Amino acid sequence: MTSRLLLQYDGGPFAGWAIQPGERTIQGEVEAALGRILGRQAPLTVAGRTDAGVHAWGQVASYQDEALDPVNVNALLPSTIAVLDCAPAPDDFDARRDALSRTYCYRLLHRRTRDAFERGRALWWRHGLDRDALRACAAALRGPHDFTAFTPADTEHVHFERQVLRAEWIDHGDLLEFWIECDAFMRHMNRILVGTMLEVASGRRGADDFARLLDGADRHQAGPTAPAHGLYFATVSYPHA
Amino acid sequence: MTSRLLLQYDGGPFAGWAIQPGERTIQGEVEAALGRILGRQAPLTVAGRTDAGVHAWGQVASYQDEALDPVNVNALLPSTIAVLDCAPAPDDFDARRDALSRTYCYRLLHRRTRDAFERGRALWWRHGLDRDALRACAAALRGPHDFTAFTPADTEHVHFERQVLRAEWIDHGDLLEFWIECDAFMRHMNRILVGTMLEVASGRRGADDFARLLDGADRHQAGPTAPAHGLYFATVSYPHA
Repeated sequence: MTSRLLLQYDGGPFAGWAIQPGERTIQGEVEAALGRILGRQAPLTVAGRTDAGVHAWGQVASYQDEALDPVNVNALLPSTIAVLDCAPAPDDFDARRDALSRTYCYRLLHRRTRDAFERGRALWWRHGLDRDALRACAAALRGPHDFTAFTPADTEHVHFERQVLRAEWIDHGDLLEFWIECDAFMRHMNRILVGTMLEVASGRRGADDFARLLDGADRHQAGPTAPAHGLYFATVSYPHA
Repeated sequence: MTSRLLLQYDGGPFAGWAIQPGERTIQGEVEAALGRILGRQAPLTVAGRTDAGVHAWGQVASYQDEALDPVNVNALLPSTIAVLDCAPAPDDFDARRDALSRTYCYRLLHRRTRDAFERGRALWWRHGLDRDALRACAAALRGPHDFTAFTPADTEHVHFERQVLRAEWIDHGDLLEFWIECDAFMRHMNRILVGTMLEVASGRRGADDFARLLDGADRHQAGPTAPAHGLYFATVSYPHA
């Protein structure tokens, strides 16, 4: 029996998705809640393992046991995690292996004064921001690229080519969103992409230089890792969704 | 010399706008920050005194001293308060007396499961909700009415008639917003209006009964006071804005 969870979380208080001894993690909290109701352990497989501080709007996880009422699971979870749905899935469903693509969103607040409601939920950027340059970077991202420059050099990844299905900056006035859909992501990939694009947007690097990095450059040639608190795991796409 | 402040705050951590001894208030925090920079006290006059827990997107306050850089004021404020603008105003400007109208918004999350990001920022409503009934209530609100039923019976208000310039429920799927613009509001008025409309929307009271209360009924005839955390002071309108 296989079940599928749809989850939302504010990543701020957590050391990321994956269980780690002595740390408060999203996987740890959700597995503990499921275990208390089911009376046995239900290990979770997740579509996208998020880093410490990264949020999720539509994370998907699967486990081998019966589906539960989300309201009952939420009652055992901290208020910064919400199960939105829990439903029976085909026996062979695997949230990670079956995912065709994942979509992330990075939220950026561009203005001189801070926002009382966006603290911990968007990166506050007070420097110059050339929005045309951001759009040029997004255009360069689409298609297949070698993202070696966009993950730590000390890596467990073996393949560095990824297929970018969607990449765009959406402009909501002083709030900007970077949306990216990819077959799969590497560790820190979105945050290094955003950190490097912000170098371009503030005039410290050319858009052509950003495009050049997408061809398998070294990590040290790309920019810094943008803060986790602007990043949201948005959605997953499955063949039978 | 008169200055005008535009302010945003998450009301959650505060005992409301107005200074009270021994309590953490928004007025207290902002006056302390202004005083530290100016080297003298600058008492604030505010467009809308908000209750404990009520938020603001566009509160306006005035004081008799020079305008300051918002960034310098924010540096001395808790992160849940943000000065968005601070500018010189005409010498006789008074944020409270000169206001033609105030607009509030009440945010309601209507679904079975909670939201990890809306805790403390919208009222989570799990009961029935007849959206047509809410719209009928909003239509009944427009125009002049006697709001005696919508403020505590033990009151310092003398006049109970108010002019509703705008009242509407806006539907964003499982998030609903009640927008109301009025020449002035009485204590708890918005929260009792929302509490009573939710009785109508959940079938415990007729929309005609709600309309009848707008004609100067007693407080005990209206519904409960909805929680503060769904309410936002949105904007103020001035003649020379």
